[in-house]
Amino acid sequence: MIIIKIGLIQLKPSKDKKDNIIKAEKMIREAALNGAEIISLPEIFNTHYSSEYFASNAETYPFGKTIKMLSIAAALNKIYLIGGSVPEKYEDKLYNTCFIFDRCGKLIARHRKLHLFDIDIKGKISFKESLYFSPGSSITVFDTDCCRVGVCICFDIRFPEIFRIMADLGAKLIFVPAAFNMTTGPKHWETLFKSRAMDYQVYTAGISPARDELSSYTAYGNSIICSPFGEVLSSLDEKEGILYGDIDMEYLEKVRLELPLTKSRRLDLKVEKIKG
Amino acid sequence: MIIIKIGLIQLKPSKDKKDNIIKAEKMIREAALNGAEIISLPEIFNTHYSSEYFASNAETYPFGKTIKMLSIAAALNKIYLIGGSVPEKYEDKLYNTCFIFDRCGKLIARHRKLHLFDIDIKGKISFKESLYFSPGSSITVFDTDCCRVGVCICFDIRFPEIFRIMADLGAKLIFVPAAFNMTTGPKHWETLFKSRAMDYQVYTAGISPARDELSSYTAYGNSIICSPFGEVLSSLDEKEGILYGDIDMEYLEKVRLELPLTKSRRLDLKVEKIKG
Repeated sequence: MIIIKIGLIQLKPSKDKKDNIIKAEKMIREAALNGAEIISLPEIFNTHYSSEYFASNAETYPFGKTIKMLSIAAALNKIYLIGGSVPEKYEDKLYNTCFIFDRCGKLIARHRKLHLFDIDIKGKISFKESLYFSPGSSITVFDTDCCRVGVCICFDIRFPEIFRIMADLGAKLIFVPAAFNMTTGPKHWETLFKSRAMDYQVYTAGISPARDELSSYTAYGNSIICSPFGEVLSSLDEKEGILYGDIDMEYLEKVRLELPLTKSRRLDLKVEKIKG
Repeated sequence: MIIIKIGLIQLKPSKDKKDNIIKAEKMIREAALNGAEIISLPEIFNTHYSSEYFASNAETYPFGKTIKMLSIAAALNKIYLIGGSVPEKYEDKLYNTCFIFDRCGKLIARHRKLHLFDIDIKGKISFKESLYFSPGSSITVFDTDCCRVGVCICFDIRFPEIFRIMADLGAKLIFVPAAFNMTTGPKHWETLFKSRAMDYQVYTAGISPARDELSSYTAYGNSIICSPFGEVLSSLDEKEGILYGDIDMEYLEKVRLELPLTKSRRLDLKVEKIKG
């Protein structure tokens, strides 16, 4: 396939896991009926993103209710499904984990968030995710009918090096389930997705929960798809909804040919320093 | 010094080298009188950015007229001077080179453009800089009264890895003399400066020639200074002028403390790939 339609589900999670599972299932079906063949949910979509809800909503593969729904929804709708993320219990640790299923509902990849969100901007936003979760240790890419795909989660996007590695491994489309907040969202969200797309000449897709002003952690929303030339292809506002975009391998190859960054890249540089 | 004022000279070069030298000298003086202590000129400021003018305006260190002016202007005004770039003849090759002088007019660093601008966007912009110039081989940082400073030239900014290296070497302010065009300028210029600043938590400064619609290569203008939080501190439009900005080490350290990216960075990652 040269062109594939993707669907990003900007769901507004409640505190009730069962409701969230039912809503996710319904929105996945809607996206599939509208022609999306790779569908992604946002970060922590089966509960509120809040320390008090992580452990109580954690799941174990393959038995968790959210995880089972994802596998069945992928198979029923014959789509690739990037399961945003859920708190995952593994051995005696919790991870912020994305489970990824193929068109038959088979698990084909799993990304555990690598860079935990530890931030303390005075008077604005303070959170220490590493108090609740352990970090993963692997970069994640997998194959689809259309192209190789990479996945990372939220704070992972701040580290350009992992995009370099995913791109070098052949990923041409990178999904980032994420829940930016009302401080870093307006300042950084769009620039991050545009610049990663432009620098590595890949499509990028950012999937946020919808904004919920009543939640203890208010997500920014504004799910986004960027082209390999660093253009915003499509984006949402803060409300619940589904974002669609066409991923076009012919266009990607054209961009790479016209602006040959990989060819121009230098791997032989020295450091010259003359002290002042 | 904790705070230092910088001045970016968005000069509109003519085809006449002598005129350009006189104008640069005058604008450097103006910036210094206005309190700038690190001053930068744009890429290829002593002639038009055009293949037919490179060789005929090339200079050799320390004898070239442009280079001599730079050294004298730095000493007279007691400022650090980042000499944009000029075509440099060295041995039998031409380089696109930035000469950098301290407050005494002494050469303290020299950056030869590493990544040459080879681009062919159909119907928009086509240029093959590597036909005329040889690439440099070194990354460039140097020290000032205020902080360590990095320099790279134009197309170099497209390669995040060299910003990683400059930041790891301790650079906290990175100057990029550059001449983006009317295709990539509107699409990429601001995003590149914001994202490099945000990702590496440094100040970035982009110095463009002013726009000249009558020139064979029309520069975008829009010289820009971004903060380590990825905010645009100040910027120009397309016309000739000088851009100023305060570089504040206390603010930089605050950003790095509140959003500790360097601490969160992972150098121990593996690749996990499950084929679809």
